[in-house]
Amino acid sequence: MNKPGPTSHSTFMDLAVKLAARHMRAGAGGPFGAIIVHQGIVIGRGWNEVTSGNDPTAHAEISAIRDACRQRSTFSLAGSVIYTTCEPCPMCLAAIWWARIDTIYYASTRDDAARIGFDDAALYQEVSLPVHQRRLPLIQQPSDKAAQLMREWIEKEDKIPY
Amino acid sequence: MNKPGPTSHSTFMDLAVKLAARHMRAGAGGPFGAIIVHQGIVIGRGWNEVTSGNDPTAHAEISAIRDACRQRSTFSLAGSVIYTTCEPCPMCLAAIWWARIDTIYYASTRDDAARIGFDDAALYQEVSLPVHQRRLPLIQQPSDKAAQLMREWIEKEDKIPY
Repeated sequence: MNKPGPTSHSTFMDLAVKLAARHMRAGAGGPFGAIIVHQGIVIGRGWNEVTSGNDPTAHAEISAIRDACRQRSTFSLAGSVIYTTCEPCPMCLAAIWWARIDTIYYASTRDDAARIGFDDAALYQEVSLPVHQRRLPLIQQPSDKAAQLMREWIEKEDKIPY
Repeated sequence: MNKPGPTSHSTFMDLAVKLAARHMRAGAGGPFGAIIVHQGIVIGRGWNEVTSGNDPTAHAEISAIRDACRQRSTFSLAGSVIYTTCEPCPMCLAAIWWARIDTIYYASTRDDAARIGFDDAALYQEVSLPVHQRRLPLIQQPSDKAAQLMREWIEKEDKIPY
């Protein structure tokens, strides 16, 4: 199947916005939605459920990735694209990376989000800083057992790489 | 209750390593575990379930956050700390930020992880780059409806901030 053209892009984005609108109005959480598309077919849907789901990781993109992977029984979404109503935060950008999604289409920007009270800029800065310059304290508590377990992983013959 | 002293730190880290070991050996996923502690009590447990759970977001830290929030019926873990067997990847670091966790204690480093095939360094670099320099294509598909929905959020009277 061909890649979606401009019309399809706006159709898919409209779908993501509709999801965001419906669930925001129902009290699920913030005004954000996302869909995952594989070869022109919607395979995953997500919306913000942080407050209603008591889950700070339930941003629209994370929820859409989890939905698509559940639907397809896979942990790789290689060959898929994501449409999200707003530029992903660092958590979601990294999740999209781990899910092996090919391309991100987004509507509003992080500046638009900042204007309605979602300021991801500080978090982008935090993630970019060397460990010792971060605001969130990160303290090493070395463990021989943790080191040994990592060696055990190398030797594990039936492991599934990811 | 006082903050845990050095002995408690190693006891909590041992618990995280035990979780990691048990579930790695059972085939859940990679050699990673995490626990969330609030006032000396373990309130959340997580281990890597990427491959067994078909969920690329199911890193130990994310799973522990979701477990703690479910147990406590909250989307904020302010006042809690996390013990993780390895330095968090950018996805997990950002999730810990959103969960409002106070402090991260980690055992192995991202360099240790790289030596066993988990190279988060490229992802840390990706997240730190300006959008146009990234490897993962990020394309704007502007949407008036998305912009309108963000304005609706500002005016929504019964919204729950997060």
